[in-house]
Parts: sequence; structure tokens; C-alpha cells
Amino acid sequence: MTSDYDAHVAVRQESPDVFSAQLDAGWTVGGGVNGGYLLAVVGNAVRAGLADAPAPRPDPVAFSAHFVSASRPGAAVVRTRLIRSGGTTTTVAAELVQGDQVRLAALATYGDLGEASDDVARTAQPPQLPPVEQCVPAGAAPPEVRAMAPLLERLDLRLDPGSVGWAVGQPSGRGLLQGWFRLPDREPDTLSLLTVVDALPPVTFDLGRPGWAPTIELSAHVRAVPSPGWLRVRHLTTNVAGGLFEEDCDVWDSAGRLVAQSRQLARLPR
Amino acid sequence: MTSDYDAHVAVRQESPDVFSAQLDAGWTVGGGVNGGYLLAVVGNAVRAGLADAPAPRPDPVAFSAHFVSASRPGAAVVRTRLIRSGGTTTTVAAELVQGDQVRLAALATYGDLGEASDDVARTAQPPQLPPVEQCVPAGAAPPEVRAMAPLLERLDLRLDPGSVGWAVGQPSGRGLLQGWFRLPDREPDTLSLLTVVDALPPVTFDLGRPGWAPTIELSAHVRAVPSPGWLRVRHLTTNVAGGLFEEDCDVWDSAGRLVAQSRQLARLPR
Repeated sequence: MTSDYDAHVAVRQESPDVFSAQLDAGWTVGGGVNGGYLLAVVGNAVRAGLADAPAPRPDPVAFSAHFVSASRPGAAVVRTRLIRSGGTTTTVAAELVQGDQVRLAALATYGDLGEASDDVARTAQPPQLPPVEQCVPAGAAPPEVRAMAPLLERLDLRLDPGSVGWAVGQPSGRGLLQGWFRLPDREPDTLSLLTVVDALPPVTFDLGRPGWAPTIELSAHVRAVPSPGWLRVRHLTTNVAGGLFEEDCDVWDSAGRLVAQSRQLARLPR
Repeated sequence: MTSDYDAHVAVRQESPDVFSAQLDAGWTVGGGVNGGYLLAVVGNAVRAGLADAPAPRPDPVAFSAHFVSASRPGAAVVRTRLIRSGGTTTTVAAELVQGDQVRLAALATYGDLGEASDDVARTAQPPQLPPVEQCVPAGAAPPEVRAMAPLLERLDLRLDPGSVGWAVGQPSGRGLLQGWFRLPDREPDTLSLLTVVDALPPVTFDLGRPGWAPTIELSAHVRAVPSPGWLRVRHLTTNVAGGLFEEDCDVWDSAGRLVAQSRQLARLPR
């Protein structure tokens, strides 16, 4: 049985380098399509294009995207182009296009994280979160918010109570949003992590600046195959300046591993 | 008078989308060409290609590069392709090629940081460094190191004494390298910041893992036009795992502004 998520990120290979997709209206926020969802659609096309490669390259080890125009629900095309296939990784350029408009351009380096060594020397610490049942489900948002953000129905997001003051006019001002995340009908994998890194509300909500924060650029590193279960996600910004801000995201799996890191540059909400 | 740096990153426009360059042997480390230098060569070509645009777009606001093969000193070509020109930014794809080998593929979004608003809400703190004259000049490295890293002659780098324990077999283990940086004969600008974010030794030196750490992907955000004078540079890693590590870089100018941030994914030295 195909999960909703898999159906929504599905692509059909029309030719070796062209894939068609249907951007699902359920992944919109305020009329725009969520960036993390778009990354997974493009990432799925790149993965499909590499499926027949001599060596398996299923995992988006490094994925960089520049968002150049706002996607709309409906038909889209992903065009891919092989840059180079090396000993352990393959790099592909990809573009998501609707009509004659490029929506995003990406560079993706894929590898096989199942082959990675087990060495770990990590000083990063996972976010300290209350138990899932003590966190705030995104579904608890007022009906008018849910109507504007159908996205909230597509994922199970439980925000740290310390990260939701903005919902009652009391943002913490720390520039920090964190919580538990899972897809309702599917375990995480290295592809869906591309969605996870851009699924929470913009971290600027916690700075008292609500509103849509369009991404200019996002680069994600997928560092390990995630274990099943809830993910812990943390978004942090430390440099809001010149109308722009960076947003760093860490994703930890249920086994306590840092499975993805990303950094994006976005425009402040007006 | 042209500075050495400007001469080394110079490009010649051969056609609207093709630029030739000479990769200078002075920017090598252990036979490979420094990644930050390559970013600036490619960034210079993108900038040159945008010079006649209706609105000025001189600054590499977001620059993502995937390094797919090792560059060699000598002739190189940068091919560019316009992705989209929007109201305030222009996005270009670029590749650096030697012979028939792609060395790196990049996506670059350029804008005009001189037009940016002055708002700042920053929690990031600049690195605390001893005065320049109390730091350790890279030129103090033993002759055999300098012979292997001609790069060290191209820049004035003064490392925090707390960041050079590795040179005497006592790395701090924090995964932190920081110091003062300037080009010997030129003030910083938004282009040279692309070099600054990848000019220090790999942060893994501070973990007792010396050796070349090839970059897989590097994304840089240039956030402000730097003031003249010394820059403060900090490299940090928190997640060494699976044979890879991330390296975050912050660059602060003499006016106390965070002028560039980058994150790269690199392979651990063998």
C-alpha cells in the first residue's frame, strides 16, 4: 500500500532525463507549495534517474536548491542532467519547471549511506523535548490557520511548548523552534528527510515576525539512514539582518543519531 | 594597480556564457587547488556575466557548489547559464571545467547588498580572539608544510593560539579553528568572502585528524559588504560521522558585522 506521502512525491519517467509530477494541493501554505515537499519531489526524480546506475546511489547526501519562483499545485516537470559519477557519489543537476517557469534549480550529490562507516565523533546534542504527548500538535491550530495551511494535515508535528509562545502573542525571542515530527502513514527514509528539514513554521515566528518567509537557498546534508519512529527537529537562527535570515535545521532519529543537517537563507516576512 | 588576488581570480569573457581563467599554482595545497579560490573564480565569472544586467547584481548572496573532481593549476573554463532574473536577485548555474572534466558545479543567486536594509537582530557572537600580533602567523609553519601549501603565501592568516595545538601534536579536540584573516594586498569585498570561507586548514586538524579533507558541497551566504581591515573567521564542526563531517564558517568584519556564513560537507582525511 502506497502512503499518501509516496503518492504525493511520485514521479513518472517520461524520458531518461525528464520526469513528470503532480504537485499536491495538500502541501500548500498560504497558496504556495512547501519547499521541503518540492525538494522531495525533485529528489525522487534524481533517485529514479539513478536507479539503473551500476552502483546503488539512493541517498541525497548533499542537496542544494535555489528557489527562483513560487510553485503552484498541479503539473510539474523535473529535468535532470548528470554532472559526474565518481567512485562513491554521483552529482546531478535538476530543475523543477511549471509551464515555461523554472521553480527551483538544484544540485544533488547522491551516495549509499548504507555503506558508510560507523565512526561517530559528535559534539552536537539532540534537542531536549518533553514527551510527545506533552507537546502541542499542529492540528491544535485555530481553524483559520489550518485552512490557510493544508500542509498541517499532511504531517504529525508536535511542537515543544516552549516553541509555541508566538501562537498566543508571546514569542520566546530566542529564534528557536523545535518539536517531534513524523509522517502519519510512513516511516522516515533519506528522501523524506528532505521534507523534514523545511516542514516546521519559519523560525522567525519565534522572533515575533509571523508570516511567510520565502526561501532563497537551502542546502541539506543527509548523514544517516533514519531509524523508524518519531524524529526530533530543531530550527535555529542567529543572524537576522538586511531583510534576510539563516535557518539551520538538525534532525535526530529515534536511535539518537543526527540524520540530517540543513541551512537555508530566507527573506524576512514583510 | 591590480592585486595578486584580483589577477588570480580574473576571467576573460569569450562569449556571453563562456569565460576563461588561469588557475594559479600559488593557490594549491598538496597538489590540489583550494576550494575557496575556485569559488571566487567561478563567482567572478558569474559577476562578469551580470555586469550588463539592467539592475546591478554584484553580490553572491547565496552560492552553492558541489565539488566533483580535483582541479589542477592551469587553464580552466567557466560556463554559465541564466536560470532566472527576478525583482531583486538573479540566479545563475555555472560549471568550472578543465579539458572535458567538470571540476565543480555551482548555483549562484546574486543581488545588491548595498540596497539591503539596516535592520539587525543577531544573537551570533564574534569569535573572541587575542590581538592579531599575539596570534600565530601561518607563515610560521615549518618549511616542509609551506612547500606543500603554497596557499599559505597568498593570504595573511593569524590563528588563535588556542587553535594551533594540532601543530605540536596537541589538538584541542573541540572541532574549532579560528583566527584573523586578510589578503596581503587587497581589502575584502563580497567576492573575496567566497575565498575566506574555505581558506583555513580543515577543522578536523583540531580533532587530531590532519590531512586533506576534500569538500563535497559548500554553500555560502554573503550577508553584507565587508568593511576594510582584518576579518575574524571561525570554523566549527559538531558532527563527524560516517566518514564525513560538516564545517560551519562565520566571517566577521572589522565593523563587527557577520558578513558571511557557510556550511560545507567534507570527507574525513584518510
